[in-house]
Amino acid sequence: MGHGKAKRGIPSKAENFNEWYPFIVEAAELVDKRYPIKGMDVWRPYGWKTMKLIDGLTHAEMERTNHEEVNFPLLIPEHLLEKENALVARLKRAREEGVDPDDLRDEEEEGGFKKEVYWVKHAGENDLDVPMFLRPTSETAMYTMFPLWIRSHKDLPLKIYQTVNTFRYETKQTRSFIRVREIHFFEAHTAHVDEADATRQIEEDLDIVDRIMHDLCLPIIKAKRPVWDTFPGAWYTIGIDAVMPNGRTLQVASCHHYRDQWAKAFDVTYEDLDAKQAYCHQTTYGMSERLLGAVVGMHGDENGLILPPKIAPFQVVICPMIRKNLEVDTVAVAHEVAEQLRSRGLRVKVDDRDLHPGQKYYDWEIKGVPLRLDIGPRDIAQGTAFAARRTGGKEPLPMDDIVDECYRVLDEISDELRARSTAHMGDVVQPLPPLVQHDGAWRLDGNVEDGHIYELAFDGTDAHAEAIERATGFSFLGDDTNGFESPRPCHMTGEPTTRRVLLAKSY
Amino acid sequence: MGHGKAKRGIPSKAENFNEWYPFIVEAAELVDKRYPIKGMDVWRPYGWKTMKLIDGLTHAEMERTNHEEVNFPLLIPEHLLEKENALVARLKRAREEGVDPDDLRDEEEEGGFKKEVYWVKHAGENDLDVPMFLRPTSETAMYTMFPLWIRSHKDLPLKIYQTVNTFRYETKQTRSFIRVREIHFFEAHTAHVDEADATRQIEEDLDIVDRIMHDLCLPIIKAKRPVWDTFPGAWYTIGIDAVMPNGRTLQVASCHHYRDQWAKAFDVTYEDLDAKQAYCHQTTYGMSERLLGAVVGMHGDENGLILPPKIAPFQVVICPMIRKNLEVDTVAVAHEVAEQLRSRGLRVKVDDRDLHPGQKYYDWEIKGVPLRLDIGPRDIAQGTAFAARRTGGKEPLPMDDIVDECYRVLDEISDELRARSTAHMGDVVQPLPPLVQHDGAWRLDGNVEDGHIYELAFDGTDAHAEAIERATGFSFLGDDTNGFESPRPCHMTGEPTTRRVLLAKSY
Repeated sequence: MGHGKAKRGIPSKAENFNEWYPFIVEAAELVDKRYPIKGMDVWRPYGWKTMKLIDGLTHAEMERTNHEEVNFPLLIPEHLLEKENALVARLKRAREEGVDPDDLRDEEEEGGFKKEVYWVKHAGENDLDVPMFLRPTSETAMYTMFPLWIRSHKDLPLKIYQTVNTFRYETKQTRSFIRVREIHFFEAHTAHVDEADATRQIEEDLDIVDRIMHDLCLPIIKAKRPVWDTFPGAWYTIGIDAVMPNGRTLQVASCHHYRDQWAKAFDVTYEDLDAKQAYCHQTTYGMSERLLGAVVGMHGDENGLILPPKIAPFQVVICPMIRKNLEVDTVAVAHEVAEQLRSRGLRVKVDDRDLHPGQKYYDWEIKGVPLRLDIGPRDIAQGTAFAARRTGGKEPLPMDDIVDECYRVLDEISDELRARSTAHMGDVVQPLPPLVQHDGAWRLDGNVEDGHIYELAFDGTDAHAEAIERATGFSFLGDDTNGFESPRPCHMTGEPTTRRVLLAKSY
Repeated sequence: MGHGKAKRGIPSKAENFNEWYPFIVEAAELVDKRYPIKGMDVWRPYGWKTMKLIDGLTHAEMERTNHEEVNFPLLIPEHLLEKENALVARLKRAREEGVDPDDLRDEEEEGGFKKEVYWVKHAGENDLDVPMFLRPTSETAMYTMFPLWIRSHKDLPLKIYQTVNTFRYETKQTRSFIRVREIHFFEAHTAHVDEADATRQIEEDLDIVDRIMHDLCLPIIKAKRPVWDTFPGAWYTIGIDAVMPNGRTLQVASCHHYRDQWAKAFDVTYEDLDAKQAYCHQTTYGMSERLLGAVVGMHGDENGLILPPKIAPFQVVICPMIRKNLEVDTVAVAHEVAEQLRSRGLRVKVDDRDLHPGQKYYDWEIKGVPLRLDIGPRDIAQGTAFAARRTGGKEPLPMDDIVDECYRVLDEISDELRARSTAHMGDVVQPLPPLVQHDGAWRLDGNVEDGHIYELAFDGTDAHAEAIERATGFSFLGDDTNGFESPRPCHMTGEPTTRRVLLAKSY
């Protein structure tokens, strides 16, 4: 429509996504970035409500799958981190040396999270005896308690989760929701009798991911990260990546299978059926406010946000015509319709401000409300409300069936968002051009471009992987958990494989 | 019943409340205190669910009264605290010198929260240029943003709230929910056009308090704190106190009227109807996990917790008889009843573990589930379920009206809890014996005892108040917001007054 667009100066999403994104998160009143600490935004009511609706999807999934909600302290004593660092260092060494980590001893080593955490070493006017840090994630805090809670196989599986604030001392440029220093974070932690049961947990997690992403209308890539990009304490890591409009991947969630590595470091054991002590196998599943970042980035358009109906604070905004001497009370009708919709569970706003309609449309478009109903005297006379979809398209809806009609239209809007982002994914993912060996070095026979993800059949060595990364400037995202349906020749060796590997540039 | 009581060793609440309380919060699995930082407990699933149900009452009230939810960063830069400290120091001086605070200038002064906060001065391996602290409360963080959000009278009232973790460096002995170092905290902050509108906000807050306390079945005292116990930045403070079994008061909430004092310190102004700049008048309203502490302390008994139905994670637990070769499937009937109750909004647990009934009763009694339904073959034959109230009393309930019957019984349990705690309050509050002057000093003509709160008509001077505190060893809780219905002679001066002052020992 363009009303006020130039005046308000929304940057073009199509032409300049990197300006559009930071502009829109503030213009839509999701966050305020003017808080005096960089990378720590204030969540404004509209943004917080949207995030809580996303959290609501997660919590419903946790309830469905019998996870229990806990809440751990934010602060963690330094010595627990040392336990983690020693574990991580040992696993890293084992990987490098190609030996069983159990054959190596823990070593004191600086590193891991230690360089990324905020430290609390003072309280009041005192120096603390035990320095503490703000959790970047809660493995160490939780696994300190697990041995107190797990005695026998009857206590397993233990499945808990929490939604909390976590902290990373980011030194890179910060971006709302995507790279922040205080992170709104979800983490599930589980303990199991054996590796197989932990593996089943990872499968459940990936199913939960699919269900949440369906509601967020986001297609995603689930990729088993290459060894060199696996979370150091993990046996394997599956990253869940959304694809942003610029083709960059954004890791919005991850699952880690820990086997019994952490259990050995934190002494998490149970008495098995034969009355013997055994180590638990553990997993974690994490997601963050990046989910909202992906929603903002993927679905928005030149006029602002487009929120998927499942997480829109207002799914329907009703704008009655405001004019003096109208023969019917449009405002009263708008409120009646709103009450009907609310009584059937829809989130509805009536905008009866005395403003030019163009101004109202602009406000609700920028906030991404999926469906707008305009109600004027003519609509009332015709027994309709005039619907404008945020995804485009207008139609009159019959008043006597308005609730079902709104549900139908909202479902279609969700479908449209899914279709759009699936199409985007299809455009972005391209086959990798062949690599050819030349004077002993691998060279790309063709071009790769920013804005794309490249797929290839791959069953080569780490050296092959390194050659590909060097030749393309792209990084291994990992093995698509789905793989190819039938074997294809490996990009490097020509041997048949179903491994579908993805190369990407990531946030 | 006594089954296992001696064995499990629940301390007697009646005889030793100070041992009962810390025992029961862990035995009922509300929290785990074994986390390696003192005063920072782990919220276990049952405790966290109870707390979130309390939060749910608060959030419903906030929605009803048009507050909007936000979420502010945890960390606050040091220089904002200095602004607050200067304000507080000036107000304190004005009070001491009996002058208008506007006539005094801000002074640098150490103090206020500075001695009670956790400091973040390091991140990764760096010293931070700007030290930050973990919020003890969010005035400074929020009022830094208010000037950016408030332009004209149209933006007022601004009413926001958040539920977050806050931190106090407690040096006193910690107690779960009552005195902790990481506090689960609710805070509402409002800005208004003038003092009168801010006063109306305080009235709304006190009404919200009443509604929440009704659901928690807690009688409370609302007392305007004496000047010397007013939050330093406030014009006046109203403390909301529950009365614990030992007669000590526990401040579970507070409201502060700030007038325009903070607005002047943080430059929170608006353009009024005459296009002139004016300072906002502000209020805050805070509550914390102490609400749960009061619920635990007041309602529990010798067998464990008793949770008010509105906040019980399970309102009804159904125990089918478990025995081999039963002629009817008691477990199936239990699940059918559970589904009926759930479909009408009740929170229900079926305990079909193969354990001795006494063990199950013990478990659910200690967790305070308000209503238990036992279902055996004879009950089924009679078309009833056998109800045991956690507050005492047993009766068969007709199966064909089971949902309404459960609602009725749960309402009666709530009424019973209210009656008990109101009776307790009546027992605790006693008239203060007279004070007589002797050799120029005031002496008590009678005795005061721990375990009581003393009421008096009072309209004396600060010197009188000090004399009373010295003579009794009790502290001024403040002026009951209700006051006496008709004037009574002041305890010290004999002049008639409706001011009802309470003396207490507090947590």
